[in-house]
Amino acid sequence: MRTFSTPKEMQLFAKQLRKEGKVIGFVPTMGALHEGHLRLIRKARREADIVVVSIFVNPTQFDDPEDFARYPRTFDEDRYKLEMEGVQVLFAPGPDDMYPPGFSTFVEVKGLDRYMEGAYRPGHFRGVTTVVLKLFNIVMPHFAIFGLKDAQQYYIIKRMVEDLNLDLEVVPHETVREKDGLALSSRNRLLSPESRKQATAIYRALKLGKELIFSGERNPWKVKEEMLRFLKEEAPLGEVDYVEIAGVPDLQPVSEIEGKVLLAVAVRFPEARLIDNFILSPDDRLVWNERIN
Amino acid sequence: MRTFSTPKEMQLFAKQLRKEGKVIGFVPTMGALHEGHLRLIRKARREADIVVVSIFVNPTQFDDPEDFARYPRTFDEDRYKLEMEGVQVLFAPGPDDMYPPGFSTFVEVKGLDRYMEGAYRPGHFRGVTTVVLKLFNIVMPHFAIFGLKDAQQYYIIKRMVEDLNLDLEVVPHETVREKDGLALSSRNRLLSPESRKQATAIYRALKLGKELIFSGERNPWKVKEEMLRFLKEEAPLGEVDYVEIAGVPDLQPVSEIEGKVLLAVAVRFPEARLIDNFILSPDDRLVWNERIN
Repeated sequence: MRTFSTPKEMQLFAKQLRKEGKVIGFVPTMGALHEGHLRLIRKARREADIVVVSIFVNPTQFDDPEDFARYPRTFDEDRYKLEMEGVQVLFAPGPDDMYPPGFSTFVEVKGLDRYMEGAYRPGHFRGVTTVVLKLFNIVMPHFAIFGLKDAQQYYIIKRMVEDLNLDLEVVPHETVREKDGLALSSRNRLLSPESRKQATAIYRALKLGKELIFSGERNPWKVKEEMLRFLKEEAPLGEVDYVEIAGVPDLQPVSEIEGKVLLAVAVRFPEARLIDNFILSPDDRLVWNERIN
Repeated sequence: MRTFSTPKEMQLFAKQLRKEGKVIGFVPTMGALHEGHLRLIRKARREADIVVVSIFVNPTQFDDPEDFARYPRTFDEDRYKLEMEGVQVLFAPGPDDMYPPGFSTFVEVKGLDRYMEGAYRPGHFRGVTTVVLKLFNIVMPHFAIFGLKDAQQYYIIKRMVEDLNLDLEVVPHETVREKDGLALSSRNRLLSPESRKQATAIYRALKLGKELIFSGERNPWKVKEEMLRFLKEEAPLGEVDYVEIAGVPDLQPVSEIEGKVLLAVAVRFPEARLIDNFILSPDDRLVWNERIN
């Protein structure tokens, strides 16, 4: 596995690959790799000639310095996993490589960042879009894969790519779950056994919301209230940041459930803040991200 | 001359050119082409295999709707001039091609946009950086040329390109002037004969500032005051927006003149707002943008 730590070297190599007509697939990560990441990587492996994975714990997307400090870092283990998956290129820059002195440029996707994570983590998406745009320019991929656990992030990045006329495809990948439904996340390993047990309530709340909607409830407040009540009862260690139902792809809270909607939850446990979502199309009785796979 | 009006077609053609190994030089404009633009184009012609010129009067960079309405549009004449220069590709999109419904993404270069044009034209540079980034992604140039009459714009775009790891060179081109020193601008044709006469005071004020600095004055307020007094006397039809002395390339006003500085002026005449600047390196007695060429 070729490993690069500076943008210049990575970009030079990417240009060479492009010259040779290679299809570059890209999976950006913050490391602490789990099965969810590996699924994205396997998908990229099937569709690209060369898979580039980046590992960069991006300081500018953490609104909470404690969260940044606590974020798991398992670089040697990550490298080993990537080798095992046959990843050809690892891009692992340091903060100073990505943000040299004088750095001043920021990208924002307005409106889509207003609710849910955008409301509870000020500056988070600005950090995400800016670093992802940089990574796209450095890695020069033909496509990049993003996990749908971060559904708002996916829609925001898709919008950015379209708005800025970037010549690449943004590919979503369904959320990967534990057997009990908990969405895989690098932060799960921080949970105490008790929090870990209660964390399954998030998945069960989403299922409850889905069932209400599929049985005909179109009033978002009723659904959100039921889910909130459920979460308070089943996950007393957690503080609910939000239960939201937003339109897709504009991500604005809806006053009536119709078309395609994002049903999203964020809960703060003492050790880590967790998020999860289902994407629903009630008229077609379709649901994304529910499967335990 | 190949002409494209949609980003998709332009980008497809640019990709083809890149595949063929052609060097693409790019000159973005808002049309109403004058000798200043043509000099940039000639430079691009000398250094590129294929020169792409864009004509797009970008609504998002006008803080003043009247200025946008009044901005000269001379498309047929522009096309003719480009043909005469041997330009191979014209990209001339409409506003809806560049900003389709739902457009939400904005790029900002913070700090560098705080003074001078950034202070007097709120939102202007956000409009500029966003559209220029889009144009770069669509046209895929190896280099792009910007006139130094808009010096702040040049430094901001250069910063953006570096910060976002864009793989292209931002090339400056010295300001082109009339025989009496007035910097060429598409807005000059809007001036009344009386305003046109008084507008030369801008160039003469910059020369006065330069002479003061070169004769040892290091106090920016003294230099600015002398220039302001001169402008008020020599251009009574004009309202001075600012006379500023800022460091290069950080564009922050200096409290002592040293190193490389930008000496910049903006004056509002009844028919049009004009800007001009010299870039000075007093210790080396160097000046850019003064030449009448």
